[in-house]
Amino acid sequence: MPSRGATDKSTGPASPRVRVRRRPARASYDLDKVHEILDESLMCHVGFVVDDQPYVLPTLHVRVGDSLLIHGSRRNRMFNLIADGAPVCVEATVLDGLAMGRSVLQNSVNYRSVVVLGRGTAVEDPEAKLERMLALVEKCIPGRLPDLRPLTDAELGSALLVSIPLDECSVKMRTGDGDDAVADRALPVWAGELPLRVTPGEPIPDEHVPAGTAVPEYLRSWGQDRTGV
Amino acid sequence: MPSRGATDKSTGPASPRVRVRRRPARASYDLDKVHEILDESLMCHVGFVVDDQPYVLPTLHVRVGDSLLIHGSRRNRMFNLIADGAPVCVEATVLDGLAMGRSVLQNSVNYRSVVVLGRGTAVEDPEAKLERMLALVEKCIPGRLPDLRPLTDAELGSALLVSIPLDECSVKMRTGDGDDAVADRALPVWAGELPLRVTPGEPIPDEHVPAGTAVPEYLRSWGQDRTGV
Repeated sequence: MPSRGATDKSTGPASPRVRVRRRPARASYDLDKVHEILDESLMCHVGFVVDDQPYVLPTLHVRVGDSLLIHGSRRNRMFNLIADGAPVCVEATVLDGLAMGRSVLQNSVNYRSVVVLGRGTAVEDPEAKLERMLALVEKCIPGRLPDLRPLTDAELGSALLVSIPLDECSVKMRTGDGDDAVADRALPVWAGELPLRVTPGEPIPDEHVPAGTAVPEYLRSWGQDRTGV
Repeated sequence: MPSRGATDKSTGPASPRVRVRRRPARASYDLDKVHEILDESLMCHVGFVVDDQPYVLPTLHVRVGDSLLIHGSRRNRMFNLIADGAPVCVEATVLDGLAMGRSVLQNSVNYRSVVVLGRGTAVEDPEAKLERMLALVEKCIPGRLPDLRPLTDAELGSALLVSIPLDECSVKMRTGDGDDAVADRALPVWAGELPLRVTPGEPIPDEHVPAGTAVPEYLRSWGQDRTGV
């Protein structure tokens, strides 16, 4: 039987808070794996607390070095809280497929997820901020940057970019097929894995694109180096 | 120009806590839209708080009526907290595409997201629990249930199923293309939307499936009724 989880345990958890307690065989604390998942996932899910109530909001992110960057508006309550250093949890998950065993509980999903705990700080240095804003676009739509009108100073100033260090994080993942009990393996049922991936459809130009304008090649090939969703 | 956000405002927010403050034109409080997003998203992101620290973990969910159900293990810290009625936030997002304008800040994603605030209770009634566990499998892999060995009482007992009422929730979504300023619209750049969807790859049987066993038709057609990721 193939391994069902992450195997790289060369490093342990940075703190008890990020130690994976349930199914530790599926855990990893390897920073390369953290990077891989953050780089492949398009959106992340940012948790924060107001008046003892947790909130979770989706947003875009990019990793630069050992920092996670999320981008929002200065008028957004969440981003102001986070930029002010409130405790956050950022979770990102890549869905890789459906895992199918022969009994109800052995039907699940294969995924790679990362959880980052920490506190953010606003990126204020204009040069660093610009570099990271461009990295965010390049990550989401590789190849598009040369087509874009440059950011103005006012636009750069209006954006709130928050950096969270990857100091305290953990990975949890599931791979392989359904994990059937031995007694179930002879049941006459197809079982295994259905890989899933995200694929682009036909690009839809807006009404201002002149007729005959070619669709950029980077859109035609978008996602070809992604293995999951 | 097409509308950039949700338009159904027939109902207002159930509480100030779920009122969308930033870009309210993209908000909705319509329960049909909440249902649609919960039904189409495969995974959700559950936020909870321990010692003032937010945590967010991904899991599977299913909606049954006006309740959201999430499934975990009795040995899972998160699920025990949530089953005991700790405040939670469940967020689910469907990624619909990439929105591309002609300037850096107008490159973003189109999505539909729902945020549910509330407190969960464990589903203990065996009949209700079984029905909802099966609904979860049917939602993730439509058509598979008849192939599966039935749940035993012990398996049903081992699962922890938590129900959260859809009493306090909000939708935020983005549609259309990049929202370029008038001055940017004449730039000679392709702009618009790249729709994204999740598509299945080639099914991979596990080592116990006899040679020649046909792949079920429901796997070949998986996802054809999904419009996003």
